[in-house]
Amino acid sequence: MKAFVMKEIGSVGFADKPVPKPGPNDAVVRTTRALICTSDSHTVAGGIGPRQDLTLGHEAVGVVADVGSQVRDFHPGDRVLVGAITPDWGDRAAQAGHASQSGAPLGGWKFSNSKDGVFAEFFHVNDADANMAKIPDTVADEVAVYCADMLSTGFMGAEHGNIPIGGTVAVLAQGPVGLMCTAGARLRGAGLIIGVESVASRQKLARAYGADEIVDFTKEDVVERVLELTGGEGVDTAIEALGADATFQTAVKITKPGGTVSNTGYFGEGEFVRIPRVEWGVGMADKTIATGLCPGGRLRMERLLRVLAAGRLDPTLMTSHTFAFDEMEQAFEIADKKLDGAVKVLITF
Amino acid sequence: MKAFVMKEIGSVGFADKPVPKPGPNDAVVRTTRALICTSDSHTVAGGIGPRQDLTLGHEAVGVVADVGSQVRDFHPGDRVLVGAITPDWGDRAAQAGHASQSGAPLGGWKFSNSKDGVFAEFFHVNDADANMAKIPDTVADEVAVYCADMLSTGFMGAEHGNIPIGGTVAVLAQGPVGLMCTAGARLRGAGLIIGVESVASRQKLARAYGADEIVDFTKEDVVERVLELTGGEGVDTAIEALGADATFQTAVKITKPGGTVSNTGYFGEGEFVRIPRVEWGVGMADKTIATGLCPGGRLRMERLLRVLAAGRLDPTLMTSHTFAFDEMEQAFEIADKKLDGAVKVLITF
Amino acid sequence: MKAFVMKEIGSVGFADKPVPKPGPNDAVVRTTRALICTSDSHTVAGGIGPRQDLTLGHEAVGVVADVGSQVRDFHPGDRVLVGAITPDWGDRAAQAGHASQSGAPLGGWKFSNSKDGVFAEFFHVNDADANMAKIPDTVADEVAVYCADMLSTGFMGAEHGNIPIGGTVAVLAQGPVGLMCTAGARLRGAGLIIGVESVASRQKLARAYGADEIVDFTKEDVVERVLELTGGEGVDTAIEALGADATFQTAVKITKPGGTVSNTGYFGEGEFVRIPRVEWGVGMADKTIATGLCPGGRLRMERLLRVLAAGRLDPTLMTSHTFAFDEMEQAFEIADKKLDGAVKVLITF
Amino acid sequence: MKAFVMKEIGSVGFADKPVPKPGPNDAVVRTTRALICTSDSHTVAGGIGPRQDLTLGHEAVGVVADVGSQVRDFHPGDRVLVGAITPDWGDRAAQAGHASQSGAPLGGWKFSNSKDGVFAEFFHVNDADANMAKIPDTVADEVAVYCADMLSTGFMGAEHGNIPIGGTVAVLAQGPVGLMCTAGARLRGAGLIIGVESVASRQKLARAYGADEIVDFTKEDVVERVLELTGGEGVDTAIEALGADATFQTAVKITKPGGTVSNTGYFGEGEFVRIPRVEWGVGMADKTIATGLCPGGRLRMERLLRVLAAGRLDPTLMTSHTFAFDEMEQAFEIADKKLDGAVKVLITF
Repeated sequence: MKAFVMKEIGSVGFADKPVPKPGPNDAVVRTTRALICTSDSHTVAGGIGPRQDLTLGHEAVGVVADVGSQVRDFHPGDRVLVGAITPDWGDRAAQAGHASQSGAPLGGWKFSNSKDGVFAEFFHVNDADANMAKIPDTVADEVAVYCADMLSTGFMGAEHGNIPIGGTVAVLAQGPVGLMCTAGARLRGAGLIIGVESVASRQKLARAYGADEIVDFTKEDVVERVLELTGGEGVDTAIEALGADATFQTAVKITKPGGTVSNTGYFGEGEFVRIPRVEWGVGMADKTIATGLCPGGRLRMERLLRVLAAGRLDPTLMTSHTFAFDEMEQAFEIADKKLDGAVKVLITF
Repeated sequence: MKAFVMKEIGSVGFADKPVPKPGPNDAVVRTTRALICTSDSHTVAGGIGPRQDLTLGHEAVGVVADVGSQVRDFHPGDRVLVGAITPDWGDRAAQAGHASQSGAPLGGWKFSNSKDGVFAEFFHVNDADANMAKIPDTVADEVAVYCADMLSTGFMGAEHGNIPIGGTVAVLAQGPVGLMCTAGARLRGAGLIIGVESVASRQKLARAYGADEIVDFTKEDVVERVLELTGGEGVDTAIEALGADATFQTAVKITKPGGTVSNTGYFGEGEFVRIPRVEWGVGMADKTIATGLCPGGRLRMERLLRVLAAGRLDPTLMTSHTFAFDEMEQAFEIADKKLDGAVKVLITF
Repeated sequence: MKAFVMKEIGSVGFADKPVPKPGPNDAVVRTTRALICTSDSHTVAGGIGPRQDLTLGHEAVGVVADVGSQVRDFHPGDRVLVGAITPDWGDRAAQAGHASQSGAPLGGWKFSNSKDGVFAEFFHVNDADANMAKIPDTVADEVAVYCADMLSTGFMGAEHGNIPIGGTVAVLAQGPVGLMCTAGARLRGAGLIIGVESVASRQKLARAYGADEIVDFTKEDVVERVLELTGGEGVDTAIEALGADATFQTAVKITKPGGTVSNTGYFGEGEFVRIPRVEWGVGMADKTIATGLCPGGRLRMERLLRVLAAGRLDPTLMTSHTFAFDEMEQAFEIADKKLDGAVKVLITF
Repeated sequence: MKAFVMKEIGSVGFADKPVPKPGPNDAVVRTTRALICTSDSHTVAGGIGPRQDLTLGHEAVGVVADVGSQVRDFHPGDRVLVGAITPDWGDRAAQAGHASQSGAPLGGWKFSNSKDGVFAEFFHVNDADANMAKIPDTVADEVAVYCADMLSTGFMGAEHGNIPIGGTVAVLAQGPVGLMCTAGARLRGAGLIIGVESVASRQKLARAYGADEIVDFTKEDVVERVLELTGGEGVDTAIEALGADATFQTAVKITKPGGTVSNTGYFGEGEFVRIPRVEWGVGMADKTIATGLCPGGRLRMERLLRVLAAGRLDPTLMTSHTFAFDEMEQAFEIADKKLDGAVKVLITF
């Protein structure tokens, strides 16, 4: 079968690979839709170290092609969503409530990391009963595919932020994950959502997903402006959705005592991420810093699909480009370099 | 001044009373809008025991008329919202996070219980800095007044229900509190909200506030129908918003193992509220039963006002009748007997 | 092999059965020590319906005899502890944090319920990597075996009770689970632990496990006495460890507003378990009722073994009798009828 | 009256001041016992900026000398404990559950910060009903005084660490707060407590308060040793009890994915506190960082006194020196410079 791979650090292209076979608890899925993620770019750039001919991609939906002997609830022909993160649910980290950390730090992240990803005609799913969800008839593939990572990660940002009904939230950066943090803050009942973003098209999307105010960091001081918008108090919850030391510092500064900094960003550079000491209350202001990796699993996917089936939000506003799998090289370049206003690039199979 | 009082059990009418004076930490508010609550009927019917010439009412907004010497943040002329519950925040129950229970069980409930209520030209507010909130210019009095009890109690029902994003919720009864439970479930991100209600006008309101499905208990078996709507599983959260033993039992039955029964109803009758033993998992199915009394306090009121200022929902859909304070006797009868499709009856001053 | 079975409702005895074979993810354990549980009596009495020649028992330790092809961390010869509850960790209830409810209400309870139990020379363990734990050299089999159910259930009672450091706790009934609730309350830092019990030998054990005060319900009114001991307030946490309607009512009555009733008892009789309406604060006093079934899993077992390895408590004080497996009939009668001051009856293999 | 003051940055001595008068909600307490805190040294060194003739000290017990007109539960002659932190309970931060942050970041800290402290013959207590607790007859003044800050802060370190029963904990530094973190971890049921400390006398105290293992950072690599002690996993909870960037980094490194870094240390230096990026899981390993300031309030103090009344631990093991108030200059020097093995220096009045 055809697969789109990272040949080595810095290089991508097509490769021919055998169709995977399921183990007793596994499934093989024929891909129908996939999305390119910024993490794919990080991976190709060497973010997780060298890899050779590793199939890229972790956001996909498809149709079950084959299942192992122990799989109980899925059958060939089922339309399914698979989480970007496919944990080992029996692992002790999962038993402790941290499934995405099963096996190792970030160990639930297998696609395009410890095994081949989803940018291929078929892909393999470990522990299928636990890691896949059937897609309701009323949800199209190109809608459902957003649950795999974007909704799950973005909503996690809001959930970890411990937002009270009527609370104040700032979301720093309105890329696809940040936009879904914004949507997640709205879903949790925030009373004031401040989106920090400088790109006009993303500002517009932020408003569409629930931002009440937009702060453009190229035009105003974010800390000053957020304090002004919150009567000098700071927000209950600041969500970092970029993965930059400076943004993280801003997040700490704009959070009120007793509030939460919720991180969704991947920090790819530097030895340290730095907490501004004084604004952190010299370590005593009850400002909690929470982090996490995209939650996976059947239950999570079913819940996210329910949100979409109920029409609570339309993730396809983020689909800036659509390409056929054959055009993957062009698609990847656009996503990688964020050309032409790229937000999310959808691949059809 | 003129006050509308419970003369004795079963009897209401106007009385003349002196304008209250604030103690050092208190305020006196000139009433501008108030709402009649089912609790007022319970009180008149003897629900909290005998009272003589007690001013009724606990849902009101107004303008500050006078403040005590220690009050710091409020001044005569300020438009303010006052929670129905006005806790003693230094009390140990409040220090434990249960302010509505300060001083005694349900001790935060002072208006029309341990002191005169708000159906008067002026009313007294204990600990004004902690129990009042300024109303934003963009929120009208007849909108803001819904925060005092309806939004606070209804949203609490959702909050105590521990609803995950995409979770399934049933709200049993769609009176004003139930409707705000429905709205609260929507604000918390529920993916499926089932409103149980038989009255057509309330069914319509339930849909307006976010119910995805309506179950009419006069036409179908609630347990069967909810199980059907949830693939046989039951809901993550069942919110009791009536205060009836039979409804409570239904709530336990439709909640999945690991789910939560969140109670907002006032149980006025009988020696016991009964848990169905087998459906409760013989005491081992991890079904939590949570209860509470309307949260009060400045922070809560500010957050609820923020929800309204942001236009997240319009509580005035519930205003079925409006009367001037002079017409209070007629207004009370309509609210008390739920005549003429009464949902909430608004009083203007 | 020899197994001790429930022949039918009301009848027990030995049977000959084949040694079980492990599936790919499973293990077979040669039993070395087991404990008889009150649940075994409930089962024989028909509590879970009719069964034919079902091997009894769910509390055991042993030595791994055989493992399936997919088992990674265990090998023949390993000394292991197996939780009484062996969940399916990939199930959605487990993904939601309620593993004991996986598959069905109480579905994690497989031993002597949906499959043969541990009163046999060998027993079968599903999902061995997730449901077994190695026993440290410093912990003897007859000590470790208490983790399977007694420590796990009893400590859960304390954990669900949300006990603050210095909080007040009452544990109603000091049978083996109640005693471990008492020990659990001590482990969580309670400042006052009241054990309710009438039997002198159990009162003594209660004191040994951490009870500061003993209330004998045959000599004094429990509600009055607990209120007296708590300055009229009631306790932060009342733990029901009997499974009786009257005891449950007492638990609600002695819990302060904002407190928690934590249930560990199995309710075997009647259509309802009844909440006393007025003392429950008419449904508004913030008294939470929590329930659960013994937590299982490798992580839980490892943590409990760590408590024992560190010498935090000695569960063998509860071992009132010891019998060889051959003497199982006599042992079961003593445990079943609580003859001769029976607390826990240990079986050696 | 005589008071021991910070004359200016770097200088201390006695001053004569008038006996304070209570406002309507306040009390004045005649001091009987006090403890010197490292924070007093920070303050004198300029940690909170310049002050002139500010009375030092925030840990004290005494006898009520006078109360304001609104004080309900306390009377002259009552033996009382006063928390180091005396919040404004009506403030919105307190309503949000963060009383120590009331009014401003760390705003609940008033003694020797925004008003005179307790190193004087008399001291003033704001909101007496909410911030004082009666001392049980069975608890001596020199025992009770440890609740004001040491127990409250140390136990908070454990509480914020979210320690499960049987969990693994490391406490970095075994000064008085660190020792009480150790005791707190024991009170919460930790199964393995690792104390990091190089001073022999403090190592001994750490063992007395519950440490199972001691790691001497001058002799071994803390990260390596903690990983070794936890089977390569890291701890569930790492408590920073020093307030140093390097120690904080170690805390992050030894915490397992899904675990918690709980900070109690005061960070007095540098622009940043630095998180090691890779060991933090590039912002995705679910390692939560929690912070806080000593909880105050009557409820907290009553709970801590209950722990002492029940004999759960003996804080006086930390009393290395005792001086009369007249000898305060000598006492302060010993505490300030940690001379002569000083741990806690007790002052008698």
